[in-house]
Amino acid sequence: MPQISNVGLAMPSSPIRKLMPFANAAKKAGKRVIHLNIGQPDVSSPDVAVRALKDDARTVIEYSPSEGYESYREALSIYYKNASINVEVDDLIVTTGGSEALIFGLLSCMDPGDEIIIPEPFYANYNGFAKMVGVNIIPVTAYIDDGFALPPIEDFEAKITSKTKAILICNPGNPTGKVYNSEALDALAKLVLKHDLYILSDEVYREFCYDGSQPKSVLELEGLAQNAIMIDSVSKRFSMCGARVGALVTKNAALRETIMKFAMARLSPPTLGQIASEAALKAPASYFEDVRSCYVKRRDVLVEGLNNIPGAMCPMPGGAFYAVCKLPIDNSDTFCQWILEKFDLNGDTVMMAPASGFYSTEGAGYNEVRIAYVLDLPLLERAIVCLKAALELYPGRTT
Amino acid sequence: MPQISNVGLAMPSSPIRKLMPFANAAKKAGKRVIHLNIGQPDVSSPDVAVRALKDDARTVIEYSPSEGYESYREALSIYYKNASINVEVDDLIVTTGGSEALIFGLLSCMDPGDEIIIPEPFYANYNGFAKMVGVNIIPVTAYIDDGFALPPIEDFEAKITSKTKAILICNPGNPTGKVYNSEALDALAKLVLKHDLYILSDEVYREFCYDGSQPKSVLELEGLAQNAIMIDSVSKRFSMCGARVGALVTKNAALRETIMKFAMARLSPPTLGQIASEAALKAPASYFEDVRSCYVKRRDVLVEGLNNIPGAMCPMPGGAFYAVCKLPIDNSDTFCQWILEKFDLNGDTVMMAPASGFYSTEGAGYNEVRIAYVLDLPLLERAIVCLKAALELYPGRTT
Repeated sequence: MPQISNVGLAMPSSPIRKLMPFANAAKKAGKRVIHLNIGQPDVSSPDVAVRALKDDARTVIEYSPSEGYESYREALSIYYKNASINVEVDDLIVTTGGSEALIFGLLSCMDPGDEIIIPEPFYANYNGFAKMVGVNIIPVTAYIDDGFALPPIEDFEAKITSKTKAILICNPGNPTGKVYNSEALDALAKLVLKHDLYILSDEVYREFCYDGSQPKSVLELEGLAQNAIMIDSVSKRFSMCGARVGALVTKNAALRETIMKFAMARLSPPTLGQIASEAALKAPASYFEDVRSCYVKRRDVLVEGLNNIPGAMCPMPGGAFYAVCKLPIDNSDTFCQWILEKFDLNGDTVMMAPASGFYSTEGAGYNEVRIAYVLDLPLLERAIVCLKAALELYPGRTT
Repeated sequence: MPQISNVGLAMPSSPIRKLMPFANAAKKAGKRVIHLNIGQPDVSSPDVAVRALKDDARTVIEYSPSEGYESYREALSIYYKNASINVEVDDLIVTTGGSEALIFGLLSCMDPGDEIIIPEPFYANYNGFAKMVGVNIIPVTAYIDDGFALPPIEDFEAKITSKTKAILICNPGNPTGKVYNSEALDALAKLVLKHDLYILSDEVYREFCYDGSQPKSVLELEGLAQNAIMIDSVSKRFSMCGARVGALVTKNAALRETIMKFAMARLSPPTLGQIASEAALKAPASYFEDVRSCYVKRRDVLVEGLNNIPGAMCPMPGGAFYAVCKLPIDNSDTFCQWILEKFDLNGDTVMMAPASGFYSTEGAGYNEVRIAYVLDLPLLERAIVCLKAALELYPGRTT
């Protein structure tokens, strides 16, 4: 039998994957598992997007151009301009989800063995994309006690070597929900220019900013036209994760030309997803207002509930629909398995993502979990009650 | 300005891309360009697939499982079984087009610096996928005078080194239209087993076999359960190139587990494309019968027409909808540009893909072009008339 590749052997599994058998066993045993681990929003896709698919008259589901449909790229450019981000049609390449945008971005900026600096905790799949491209992630730790603020610029600079080619941020952040302020981003921009690096900014949660905070795009930063790459996606924005439509946006023409070579090799982003995505841009303002107010209510209930659990601490997230919470436990991998395997409260238990999977530094986040609030309020409230009860019984409780 | 990656700089452009400016200029100058270069079938997608999208009741375009919808995988498994290919549901991973299946296949079988042997001429985008993964393509030349038969096994064996991990074939073939016979495939299977290699077989044209020939899948070959990987796609089969739905099929469980790690990193294949693809499997037998009889008519007219041009030679393709034709010319890159730039017959000219882009060996195929017959008969006939007239005028004519 021929060997599996080393790249394949080194590919990480998702932090949640390891827990799946325990969640399935819990369900089989008759427990109700409340999923706090899921990134698929529970809100509806915009009506106008779903309708566009039904109204579409084409009889051949043909390729789109490799860079995406011109009409969709035009509509997206207007969307960004309305958000005060100066994006021309030609700055935009449509991708198969944010995932492909990240892979093409890494492939175009970096060679195998190169280094990319990422504040941790970060979206766990960045590990997989880096492995696929053969580049090394160098983490800079953000701390829960600082509310996951962007680490000091000195911490980034200390990690820069001759192999450093790029910095990657996620803003608003998954898993932290952190929205970076202008000052932090400006400082990062200076560093990027000083060392002539690329900066990739994953902005797929940009519509989910709360308490009046405005998400600042990497494309709005001064002097970064040749350095900045924005990663975007309709997955979370329009609750259309299955459309598989993202975008890569940069003012750097040489970089776009390179990205286009990868885009042409895979021929075309999904045609049907683009039809829905273009239509979704016509969703009324009330669509986002409703979604945002729904998430804010859930976030407030969640964060207050978590902070009322003795020994727990959860900073208030400013965006996205995740929170990272510190718990009075020895090990979140063990705890997240234990709560599925050994615990229930009148038949109910919860599934959470251990935060260890979001850190690159060994041992970091050992007592933290990521919680997604894409559940109805009553279920969220019940989950908090369960979590509190579980912590009272958990043998590995520390305080 | 930061540097573009070496990987990005080394990515090949498509053979057709270089001609696009000349095709556009020809159109601007008022010429009609008959496109013999296009791989998008002109036939309709099955009604039942288009209707399924309209009838679908979901209000959230949500993720599908990373391995694809269970119901689609079940339907696909039945499709293969009906074609006498023993495929169980669990052998199947749904991908974002055949492109992603190829990339995941390469990533799982091979490491950077490893070698993959491919009979040339081959689908030009294999070059891009190999560059992305960092593996080297080692060509084994097939010859037009042999009708592009699979090269002798000794030619493959002569190329095997300690770095050889896999052999990749395309059957029926793009760009040649060649359908390999059982004997050739059995000989290849023996070689693969002898050297414990993987064999990837791109079978996306399997429904397009003519003159009663039956396409033999790599999954039907004896003793190859741990070695064989089939690449498939709905793009050509159902004229649904924009659905971006493919599949990777293998009986090797360890390999599937590895492929699933890549699949989970990118989350989900397209949901909408899968809805259409599952429905397409219910297309009546008459759908393929109509399409096949249409292609056979075109193929016959094309091949006869080409062989009637003095100095031209085109072997009869047994499958797909491409033909490679030898022309009495000095250089097909030059000729394909010249015919767009300097030639017209009462305003008409043709665009073809120079075959050089399908060979890895420098200089091979210098006097060959690839022609796709996805055009109506009258247009195809007109294209042959134009080509004949152009060859009479072309300054680089050799005979």
